[in-house]
Amino acid sequence: MRLYVLRLGHRPARDRRITTHVGLIARALGADGIIISGDRDDNVIKSLEKVVELWGGPFEIQYVEDWYSLIKRFKENGWELIHLTVYGLPIQDVIDSIRSSSKDKLIIVGASKVPRVVYELSDWNVAVSSQPHSECGSLAVFLDRFFQGKELSKEFKGWKLKVIPQTRGKKVVRAES
Amino acid sequence: MRLYVLRLGHRPARDRRITTHVGLIARALGADGIIISGDRDDNVIKSLEKVVELWGGPFEIQYVEDWYSLIKRFKENGWELIHLTVYGLPIQDVIDSIRSSSKDKLIIVGASKVPRVVYELSDWNVAVSSQPHSECGSLAVFLDRFFQGKELSKEFKGWKLKVIPQTRGKKVVRAES
Repeated sequence: MRLYVLRLGHRPARDRRITTHVGLIARALGADGIIISGDRDDNVIKSLEKVVELWGGPFEIQYVEDWYSLIKRFKENGWELIHLTVYGLPIQDVIDSIRSSSKDKLIIVGASKVPRVVYELSDWNVAVSSQPHSECGSLAVFLDRFFQGKELSKEFKGWKLKVIPQTRGKKVVRAES
Repeated sequence: MRLYVLRLGHRPARDRRITTHVGLIARALGADGIIISGDRDDNVIKSLEKVVELWGGPFEIQYVEDWYSLIKRFKENGWELIHLTVYGLPIQDVIDSIRSSSKDKLIIVGASKVPRVVYELSDWNVAVSSQPHSECGSLAVFLDRFFQGKELSKEFKGWKLKVIPQTRGKKVVRAES
């Protein structure tokens, strides 16, 4: 099963850091890649590519202009669309059903207002609390619950840098080159 | 037991939206309040206060200039300090021990580089994956695991607006006034 994150409606000035965080969360918590839509922003793409180069992968980073065709195509190819939104069904009620399907998954998170058609095309509209929220927070909780914590011990390949957990202080090792 | 989030090192231009997201996550996922340090930014404080006014509380929002005195005072008053950092111990190894203590908790998340003394004064330095990460994502996963999902059904008081979960579409009710 593959799992990608689709970030909709990116606005470079306003969303640069949030979209970068969405990408970091997707990578750190087990997604296979992120697809960014909205206004093209090479800045975000480069900073995520730099993370993969230094800390390992695989983790795909793509930009797509026409998100509507993209989600239609994913759906036609049998992927399940899961839209994270405060208006959706509580994650605690649906996560087991979502996990029980072996279909590939596209997790959609919006920046600006999400078009109605996304709610309609999605197989699941899922809320991580029904309170005003952060797409970063929702995505992180979704991935942690979806993968049931297994994502936290994922081994990345091709890393140049790696953190060795410490009670206090910082320890980073560098791969022999 | 009380649980507050301390956001260190806020820089208004760069961190405004991220710090706002940290506040939204803290509120939505069960914290009793957020304390923001770094450069004072009324913009963030007002937008979080607006959320509490519309969507309910209680949820405290404070700014503090001298974070060092603050964490010393919390520690002297018997609070446990938990610093979320990529360099710390894996959350999956320590969350049960952290949860088993009934002490009040201060969860510390940094923006810019976190001073060494924070690592030293903290009772726990905790990593949500040992990968480059987002403080938003780390905080969300920490709170969800700490409260074991109970935070997702928290009832807020004094709300004017409330979301009613839907399979598709949006439903918001307004309190009678």
